[in-house]
Formats: sequence, structure tokens, C-alpha cells
Amino acid sequence: MTELRIAIVGFGKIARDQHVAAIAATPGATLAAIASRNASLPDLPHFATIEELLSKGPPIDAVSLCTPPQVRRAQAASALAAGKHVMLEKPPGVSVSELDPLIAQAERSKRTLFATWHSRYAPAVEPAREWLAARRISSVHISWKEDVRVWHPGQTWIWQPGGLGVFDPGINALSILTRIMPRPVFVTAATLSFPSNCEAPIAADLTLADATGLPITAEFDFRQTGPQSWDVIVETDGGRMTLSGGGRRMAVDGKVLSEAPDAEYRELYHRFVELAATGAADVDLSPFRLVADAFMLGKRTIVEPFVD
Amino acid sequence: MTELRIAIVGFGKIARDQHVAAIAATPGATLAAIASRNASLPDLPHFATIEELLSKGPPIDAVSLCTPPQVRRAQAASALAAGKHVMLEKPPGVSVSELDPLIAQAERSKRTLFATWHSRYAPAVEPAREWLAARRISSVHISWKEDVRVWHPGQTWIWQPGGLGVFDPGINALSILTRIMPRPVFVTAATLSFPSNCEAPIAADLTLADATGLPITAEFDFRQTGPQSWDVIVETDGGRMTLSGGGRRMAVDGKVLSEAPDAEYRELYHRFVELAATGAADVDLSPFRLVADAFMLGKRTIVEPFVD
Repeated sequence: MTELRIAIVGFGKIARDQHVAAIAATPGATLAAIASRNASLPDLPHFATIEELLSKGPPIDAVSLCTPPQVRRAQAASALAAGKHVMLEKPPGVSVSELDPLIAQAERSKRTLFATWHSRYAPAVEPAREWLAARRISSVHISWKEDVRVWHPGQTWIWQPGGLGVFDPGINALSILTRIMPRPVFVTAATLSFPSNCEAPIAADLTLADATGLPITAEFDFRQTGPQSWDVIVETDGGRMTLSGGGRRMAVDGKVLSEAPDAEYRELYHRFVELAATGAADVDLSPFRLVADAFMLGKRTIVEPFVD
Repeated sequence: MTELRIAIVGFGKIARDQHVAAIAATPGATLAAIASRNASLPDLPHFATIEELLSKGPPIDAVSLCTPPQVRRAQAASALAAGKHVMLEKPPGVSVSELDPLIAQAERSKRTLFATWHSRYAPAVEPAREWLAARRISSVHISWKEDVRVWHPGQTWIWQPGGLGVFDPGINALSILTRIMPRPVFVTAATLSFPSNCEAPIAADLTLADATGLPITAEFDFRQTGPQSWDVIVETDGGRMTLSGGGRRMAVDGKVLSEAPDAEYRELYHRFVELAATGAADVDLSPFRLVADAFMLGKRTIVEPFVD
């Protein structure tokens, strides 16, 4: 198999924290270049923009877009037009509808479009899904509470329109939920707390259901100091299943059934290499649609201003 | 052909203003019953709820849901479970995602699910679509401004979460736009004006585009007194096309090419009868997705309180 030569576009926190090491650890993938306004890596070709990368850069097969979601659609369209496979960080854009033309373009050009949901690749997610498939579920509660100052320091884009605020981590929880539930879920009510000086919510409470009326609640909060929580708790006829640590540990009635260290981004690149081999697409917009729905039907409350 | 026996569920303004007369004027359709908490028609069986209608009512083949969107999904699910065809007023619900289980249920039960967009059946919409298909479009502007006190008197649901506010008429414009444009469109920016005492916007400014970068703007306003506007203006290499009166009149450079009286709801029921004959579905969620996207990426501003 020939190597998939990948350029990272947008070299911010997530690219540095996760993508570089994940590409290095993935058989069949090579980091070939970086496009970023102001960051680079030693010994790697660097370009200020994706246009420069595509016109003057070394030969590449794919781009991994780690830029803020507000600019990703145009970059993905350029990359597909240049015949590259495209991997999108989450969320895949600023609107659900803007993905449609990209999906069509990828299909026409026989190139891979991969809208990633890294949390779905957390090690206990598949075990949880399989365990739940054989149980009767009576309720689900999600608690996703983290300190925005720790996890998103100085990321102003997150507070701008399209930045999603607390739904940036919250969509990880929704990507797990939509994967492990046996039936499609939808939002029935939401309360969104907007800081008086921000364009995106800092906290959100959601009520969801499936067609059988299953009660699902979710609390997202960016103001959590002290212990952080990334937990999904599912009550079933076989006991209480807890998927914690963002999908890394699964326990039933306190007994740990599955636990493994994080390898989410390596799994993502493994999948990307696999998809690109045939130009197949992997675009599931269901987590993003839940977020859009929550904004549409959510009740807004104004809370105290947020200062980073 | 046997008659399609239809029950109207929710007997508010739109049912009285449009549905009753449209059913009466549609060959193959008969109004067989009404379910409504507090309204009825002489000589027609009346039930307080859809559950009563389905369990104790006369034989019916279909329901037309004219209730507020907040309760429609559950009613549609009950009706499909009872083997009835279902027609949904617009918007088809309070969330885009809640339609998925209904679509699947309708398919399984081989019953029609018809998510209606009445404005698409305005007489000049198809002529506009055909005319535009042969032109190069350079810009689109939508002006959809009406007096909420005239068109939605006392409709408190419209200001509640899920009621959509000015997007209740605005979605009519988007249903026309998504029909007449040659390519899919998406929202790139929005400003939503929320009255300080309401849960839904009273005005909205949208910027949209398609994959070619076509500039599209839309102004929705519920505060319009005096002349009302329901216009789509499209600049093309063949002149300026104006689709006005909510889709009833099409003109190019001022010359009227198509104009006819309103028959939207008769066309809807004609289509419903046609679909129900084979149990086919007609659910296009693209206008609704644009609204959800606008809420998700829209900038919020607070404006003066609204008093009906």
C-alpha cells in the first residue's frame, strides 16, 4: 500500500495536541506539509494558506482540516477540487446544510469526505453499544461538564457565531449518544445559557427522546471547575451502565467491563487511510443536526459575562 | 377511485381559512371529521383529541395536522400507527431530527407522510423555476415582511420555543427559494432579533450562498405595517426576475409573465390524494434545515418587547 500523504490545515491546539502524533502512529499515513497562518513544525514544508499549499506545495493526497469551523467549508471545497481526500475536525462546519454540496462534490470527484467524531472512537463506546443492544433501556442521562479555561484557552472562535460554545464539547457527547442508542433520538426541549457578552452558550440543558418516548437528559456546562465530567449514564433492565471519561471506561453497577487508554485520533487516521483507499465517504450529520435543533427550539437565558 | 376520507386535527385559523375549502374543492377528498379541543363544524363528527378520533371516530383514511408544531410529531406517530396517511402543515415539527422516526414509520407502514410547503404551490413558482433554469443568476434577494398582528392574531404558540417567530412566514420564502434555485443553498450568516419578552425572533436577516458563491440575502420582518412584501428578486443575465405576492406573480424587468389567483391549498390536497393512492412519501426538509442552521449560527440581538 502506498502512503497517504496528508497536510494538516490549521495548526492550533487540537492539531498539535492530537493530529501530529496520531498521523505519526498510523501505518499508511505520513504528515507531508502544514498550512497555517502563523505556526509550523521543523523539517516540514509550511504554507500560509491552503491555496498556497495546493498550488505550490509538495505532492499530497489528503488534507486534514483543523481550522475553526467557520472557514472549513471553503477549504474543503478547494481541496476536493484539487483532487484531495478531506478529513474534517468536528463540528464539520457552521451549518448542517453547507455539508450537502461538499458531500455531492466528494462523490463526483470520487474522493473521501470524512466528517470525524473523535469521541465515537473512544475505546469503551463500541462495547457500550453492544451491551445496550441486548438490554431494555429505561433512561439516559448525560453529564458533560468541563472548564473552558483549561480546555479552550484563548479560543475566541468558540464564542463567535458558528463556534457553538458549550456544544463544541457537547457534540462529542451527542456523537456517542447517537452511536450507542438502538434507535434515532431527537431533541424535545432545551435551555441555552448565553453569557451577556458572548454569541454562543456557555451551558445547555437538553431533553431528548426516541420514538418510544425514552427519557434522555443532557447537561452541558463550560463553567465546571474541580472534577470534570464526561459521563453517559444509562439505566437498563440489566443494571446501570456508566460510560465515563469521555467514553474510555464502561461499567455496569460499578463493575468495570471495559477500560483502555485514549487512542481516538489514531483510530480516526486509521479509518481515514481505510476510506481514502477507495475514496469512500463517512459523513454522519446526526450529532450536528441535534445541535442545530437545540438552537432552534431552545429557550434562551442570559447569564453573567464570560471573561477568558 | 374511492374518496380519501380526511380528518382535520387542530381547528385554528389556518384550518378554517384554508383547509376546509381546499378539501371541499379537491376531487377525491372528503372532510370526514374534526379533532379539536374547542372548535367544530356543523354536521361533522367532532372529537376533542386525536386519540378519541382514532378510537371512536368514523372510518377515515387520513389526517391533516393543523395543530401547532409543538404537538405534531406525537399526533403523526399515533395516526401512522393507526394506519392513516398523514399531511403535516408547515413547519413539519419543532426539530428536524424528530422527522426521521416518522419517515421510517411511514415507510414501514406503507402510509403517506406529506410534509407540506404551501408556498411552493403558488402559481408562479414553477414558471419561475423553469425560467431561472435557463439563466445565469448573479444575486438573489428575499423581502418577506408582514404584520404579525394581522396574520397571526393571538397565536401565542408562534412566540414559544419551537414556534419559530418570524421564521413561520420566513420558511415559506425558503421553501420557494429551495425550489427555484438550480443548486442547493446554505446559510452563511444570520442576525436574529428577539423581542425582550419573547422566545422567538420577530425579525431576521440572513445571508446564504450556494457552492458557486452566489450571494443570497433575505430579510424577514414581522413588524411591517402598511404595504406587505413577499418578494423574491433574482438578478440574471436575462434581466431581473421578480416573484411577488408570495409566489403568485412572476415578472421579468417589470413585464408580467405569469400571474394567477391563489390555489395553494387545493394543490396541496390534490397532491395528498395522489400520494395517498400509493402510500408514497413527500418529505423535503431543506427549508426547515435552513431555519435550524440560521438559529445555530445566528447572532442574537434583543429588541423592544412585543405586545400582541
